[in-house]
Amino acid sequence: MSMRHRPLIISVIGGGDPPPVALQHAYDVGIELAKRDVVVACGGLGGVMEAVCQGAKSAGGTTIGIMPGDDPNEANDFVDFPICTSFKYARNVIVVKTGRAVIAIDGSYGTMSEIAHALAENIPVIGLETWSFMSNGNKDTSMIVAETPVDAVNKAIAAANTRDQID
Amino acid sequence: MSMRHRPLIISVIGGGDPPPVALQHAYDVGIELAKRDVVVACGGLGGVMEAVCQGAKSAGGTTIGIMPGDDPNEANDFVDFPICTSFKYARNVIVVKTGRAVIAIDGSYGTMSEIAHALAENIPVIGLETWSFMSNGNKDTSMIVAETPVDAVNKAIAAANTRDQID
Amino acid sequence: MSMRHRPLIISVIGGGDPPPVALQHAYDVGIELAKRDVVVACGGLGGVMEAVCQGAKSAGGTTIGIMPGDDPNEANDFVDFPICTSFKYARNVIVVKTGRAVIAIDGSYGTMSEIAHALAENIPVIGLETWSFMSNGNKDTSMIVAETPVDAVNKAIAAANTRDQID
Amino acid sequence: MSMRHRPLIISVIGGGDPPPVALQHAYDVGIELAKRDVVVACGGLGGVMEAVCQGAKSAGGTTIGIMPGDDPNEANDFVDFPICTSFKYARNVIVVKTGRAVIAIDGSYGTMSEIAHALAENIPVIGLETWSFMSNGNKDTSMIVAETPVDAVNKAIAAANTRDQID
Repeated sequence: MSMRHRPLIISVIGGGDPPPVALQHAYDVGIELAKRDVVVACGGLGGVMEAVCQGAKSAGGTTIGIMPGDDPNEANDFVDFPICTSFKYARNVIVVKTGRAVIAIDGSYGTMSEIAHALAENIPVIGLETWSFMSNGNKDTSMIVAETPVDAVNKAIAAANTRDQID
Repeated sequence: MSMRHRPLIISVIGGGDPPPVALQHAYDVGIELAKRDVVVACGGLGGVMEAVCQGAKSAGGTTIGIMPGDDPNEANDFVDFPICTSFKYARNVIVVKTGRAVIAIDGSYGTMSEIAHALAENIPVIGLETWSFMSNGNKDTSMIVAETPVDAVNKAIAAANTRDQID
Repeated sequence: MSMRHRPLIISVIGGGDPPPVALQHAYDVGIELAKRDVVVACGGLGGVMEAVCQGAKSAGGTTIGIMPGDDPNEANDFVDFPICTSFKYARNVIVVKTGRAVIAIDGSYGTMSEIAHALAENIPVIGLETWSFMSNGNKDTSMIVAETPVDAVNKAIAAANTRDQID
Repeated sequence: MSMRHRPLIISVIGGGDPPPVALQHAYDVGIELAKRDVVVACGGLGGVMEAVCQGAKSAGGTTIGIMPGDDPNEANDFVDFPICTSFKYARNVIVVKTGRAVIAIDGSYGTMSEIAHALAENIPVIGLETWSFMSNGNKDTSMIVAETPVDAVNKAIAAANTRDQID
């Protein structure tokens, strides 16, 4: 365990072409994370990824974009630090591992893969109007459900803190 | 498009600790793929991965294991060619991309991530008693549902052939 | 091309167990990069990686560690933002792609792989008492040689700017 | 250690646009590996990669291509099993890890990165008219030098066997 205090990083995942309500949720999550001095990590592109970064920057926060390609100019305008992976969809693993918890908002199959990677590695996932999963007819309950952006941020920070106490 | 005829490769995904019925399904899928001269690609470990390889080898087939680590001896005994990636869960992307179609049998979150990666890239997925997905309350219907191992193999080969005609 | 001004990122590579002169070089490179408002990206561990981060932080800079594993606490104490890849040595590709130029200081085979990946992708590499390469008996001259830490930083910023004008 | 006997896999690396002598060396290495029932793994594209596969197939051998992209039709005509990674240059790590020893023939920076990854992980590398390395003016001697294709194959098999006895 390091002596030095680093800022908490929470990953926010969601699709590039979401409905307006998801963009509003992502923006509000970004504001709320920045207010709590939490750094945002995301996939660095548009849609939910851009909205959460824009919200975070509007409240003075810091944003990291884990890019699928190798051009930092593909990052949305609100990414402070583009990490150029060139791993395409496999960069989704890095997105979820870089946060101490994950907030999932809406999303398509790329988001589903991120939720699955996080759950496979016991990284807490907080879902806000996103996927749910049935395994052979039984509902999977591993994802924590949030009702609002503030609720999602509260639950993500609580889950990250619990995880850090266990580690 | 290459002039040379290569054998069709189909990926079979599923968990390491499945119920007995899933092992039987995987074994039967392996036999059926081998009978049609289809090469099996999988994640190379135990459970569904081992059962499909064992079925394939019992019918004279060929098997490829895309390993999470870097030790070929971690492959199950029925893998002919262990591919050592060292990418841990991110090797799941390679598992689904190496097949021209994917058959998912039972499975946990690792399998869910593979299904998601495949659907994200328009790789056909045939599900046999595996996950199903709801997006904001609506059932996702992108995965093709199979009723039996033979049905799964028929649908996977048909989907792979359709895909190759489009490419 | 993005409208928004982001800080320039330069990657610094080098081994975990270098001689003292390399640690001093790395520390001085870190100070000099921070003075010019350049963000440092590195592999996040000890040796050259730690010394460059320590130098950068001593001058008020910002540091990113692209980690081989999935535990942010493996980062040295001077990393602000640990990016957890879980890709082991393959994370070296991400280290060099995240910078607009690369400064190589001393180093072992991991560093050699980073130099090679950078040169393969036309990312400029500035070498400070590091590897040199012979191809079938002819000296390879693709790497830019620097004499001092300040010279290395000058040449890296110039190469990054030239690259951005071409892109 | 698995009970089951699997064929030995040796990786052959080298560039896509080599001089004619390197193509001849690669072709001869492929023949010699196939005669000894050794499976060839390579990067799956042209040049040295294609020549070694063509040699192996001419002698009844088996070939695996670890592809940088996601299209199996990018594999050269002599690849039996294309493994589609989509990881671009980072697939080089998988190429060297999949073989129990590596033969390097000629090559550019991609090959240099593969040699470096192999040496970093203590995977034996046999060089045939390829790169050599100087570290701060001292010649690096970790790579085993071969004089002819048959010599390279002899040394690679011996190194692979020694490695397997140690593991």
